Amino acid sequence: MAPTPAFSAITLPHALPLDSGEVLEGVQIAFETYGELAADKGNAILLCHALTGDQFVASEHPITGKPGWWERMVGPGKPIDTGRFHVICANVIGSCMGSTGPASEGPEGKPHAMAFPVITIRDMVRGLIGLLDVLGIERLHAVVGGSMGGMQALSLAANFPERAERVLAIATTARHSAQNIAFHEVGRQAIMADPAWADGEYYASGITPDAGLAVARMAAHITYLSEEGLTEKFGRRLQDRTEKGFGFDADFQVESYLRYQGSGFTRRFDANSYLYITRAMDYFDIAEEHGGLLADAFAGTTSRFCLVSFDSDWLYPTAESRHVVHALNAAGAPVSFVELSAPFGHDSFLLEVPALDRVVKGFLE
Amino acid sequence: MAPTPAFSAITLPHALPLDSGEVLEGVQIAFETYGELAADKGNAILLCHALTGDQFVASEHPITGKPGWWERMVGPGKPIDTGRFHVICANVIGSCMGSTGPASEGPEGKPHAMAFPVITIRDMVRGLIGLLDVLGIERLHAVVGGSMGGMQALSLAANFPERAERVLAIATTARHSAQNIAFHEVGRQAIMADPAWADGEYYASGITPDAGLAVARMAAHITYLSEEGLTEKFGRRLQDRTEKGFGFDADFQVESYLRYQGSGFTRRFDANSYLYITRAMDYFDIAEEHGGLLADAFAGTTSRFCLVSFDSDWLYPTAESRHVVHALNAAGAPVSFVELSAPFGHDSFLLEVPALDRVVKGFLE
Repeated sequence: MAPTPAFSAITLPHALPLDSGEVLEGVQIAFETYGELAADKGNAILLCHALTGDQFVASEHPITGKPGWWERMVGPGKPIDTGRFHVICANVIGSCMGSTGPASEGPEGKPHAMAFPVITIRDMVRGLIGLLDVLGIERLHAVVGGSMGGMQALSLAANFPERAERVLAIATTARHSAQNIAFHEVGRQAIMADPAWADGEYYASGITPDAGLAVARMAAHITYLSEEGLTEKFGRRLQDRTEKGFGFDADFQVESYLRYQGSGFTRRFDANSYLYITRAMDYFDIAEEHGGLLADAFAGTTSRFCLVSFDSDWLYPTAESRHVVHALNAAGAPVSFVELSAPFGHDSFLLEVPALDRVVKGFLE
Repeated sequence: MAPTPAFSAITLPHALPLDSGEVLEGVQIAFETYGELAADKGNAILLCHALTGDQFVASEHPITGKPGWWERMVGPGKPIDTGRFHVICANVIGSCMGSTGPASEGPEGKPHAMAFPVITIRDMVRGLIGLLDVLGIERLHAVVGGSMGGMQALSLAANFPERAERVLAIATTARHSAQNIAFHEVGRQAIMADPAWADGEYYASGITPDAGLAVARMAAHITYLSEEGLTEKFGRRLQDRTEKGFGFDADFQVESYLRYQGSGFTRRFDANSYLYITRAMDYFDIAEEHGGLLADAFAGTTSRFCLVSFDSDWLYPTAESRHVVHALNAAGAPVSFVELSAPFGHDSFLLEVPALDRVVKGFLE
């Protein structure tokens, strides 16, 4: 990835205990905020990002120069209205945009690399709670996230039940399935198979495992789209040619698109972070953390919940959201649930789905 | 892959013209047969194999020592009864079990490698027809195949309509979708990203791109199984441990299984063959070959057809078989079609699905 720019960040005043039993000292949390914090600090919304996301939810990305990843949802007058709410989005620990992760400096003055401890989604949430403590925010108006962001929202609700008034979890799950784990394992193996990965010790050489990381991204990217969406967007159309080339260049538009997704990703993301964050997602199983019964994870919650799934999402299909809803019902928590129809697969939560805008806006009222 | 054993093979007496416009001289076709050929040669069944299959359909594999890949279906008294039928199964051109492919010797006495011409499914079928000509088999009792084998069966019916009395196409499609192409492209990129691939020139060094080929196999393997099947078989169960390891070893059974699938595959398959055969599958679109309308491909056919799909197959879902059935209806061809319920995803055609046995047996009567 490109040299890291400077980020707004705080250092947590206390060490962070991790699920592995290890402890992280001097944890940095990089974050962005949008909109004014009210005097009573009652209007804060914590937005949690997905696997390859970051804190630049509604502002230009400092490496790619692209708009924020949820500009369509977050801003003045938008469904998450920064004219009314103070929106906080922090880079999760384990990632590579300013928060402590495998690429950040370890005790010996060089990057942790694979000496970084394996973390969990709950560990990420512990980092976010540490940030809220520093900011003096006792109770969030809402915690909101899609995909891995939704996992964090659910984990926050289960582990810090007093910290959020509302929990909005979109296109997500309370546990990673065997198929989810399998796809992530392919990505990890692709990275580790790249000789440039060098057991994670590639920071000093500057030769990064881009080829492996690109393959990992390509495999994952297919799971973010629906078969129907791919057919509509690309079908079997050829790329910049009228006849098949009878070679191994990208003949088809979908090949060209995937290659572009893969190579673009390596410019902004650290391969070791990809290993650590996918591992955290694969370990994710809220029920397991709470004695085996998902309803028990939410016993005594004081939050209102909203779950949203998409009918074309085969990565975290509607059945996974419904499983959470049933557990919340059993726990006696107020919960609304909607399955939206959208053709974009898992990525629907990031794309033009007006019905989602209405659900988000309505739930945050 | 391991050193290649000796195979039963013939050399085609004529050059093979290819869809690319190139011509292959001295083509070898390696094949196995099971059961006696009748005096009138009227009892021959051509069995077509899938992407990574081979001619060892009902006999021990000479590299792995494992039983044939369709022993449950082919043999004396079995649904494809070798007491009654003469079963022929040939390695497709482009593959690596004795038929001409990128690993076989080119004009300069060294392997073709990437100088091998890009082939199509129709080219594979041309090779099979060449074999039937040598064997003096004018008209098959049936051509039968699953997955890429089904593509060959359909292509044979469309391009050599007088050569088969019956066409049985299982878990297949008449064209590769954008999602199908995308998964194959991930596999090809994984192979080509492996420095040991060396632009395909790895035969002399003996250092083969096993890491890349294993990743390609892992990604593909997920598409052969259903989400439900993976959950049933592995769920989130741990491998040889009672607690998560908080590391990057294979904690979960599904990870361990995938790694095993990947590494086992590299011992029996050539990476360049994987590139060529996936390319042929991605190019596959019978309608396109016949002016754009699938029904036109089967106009004037003299065969009876049977299509079988599986409800849990998301690689070539039932809709793809139905698309073929509609085209056959439009062409006025006799066709029967059944969607079978089985939990194993695309791989159902290879596994214990008694209903499939009955369909196969009944159609071949």
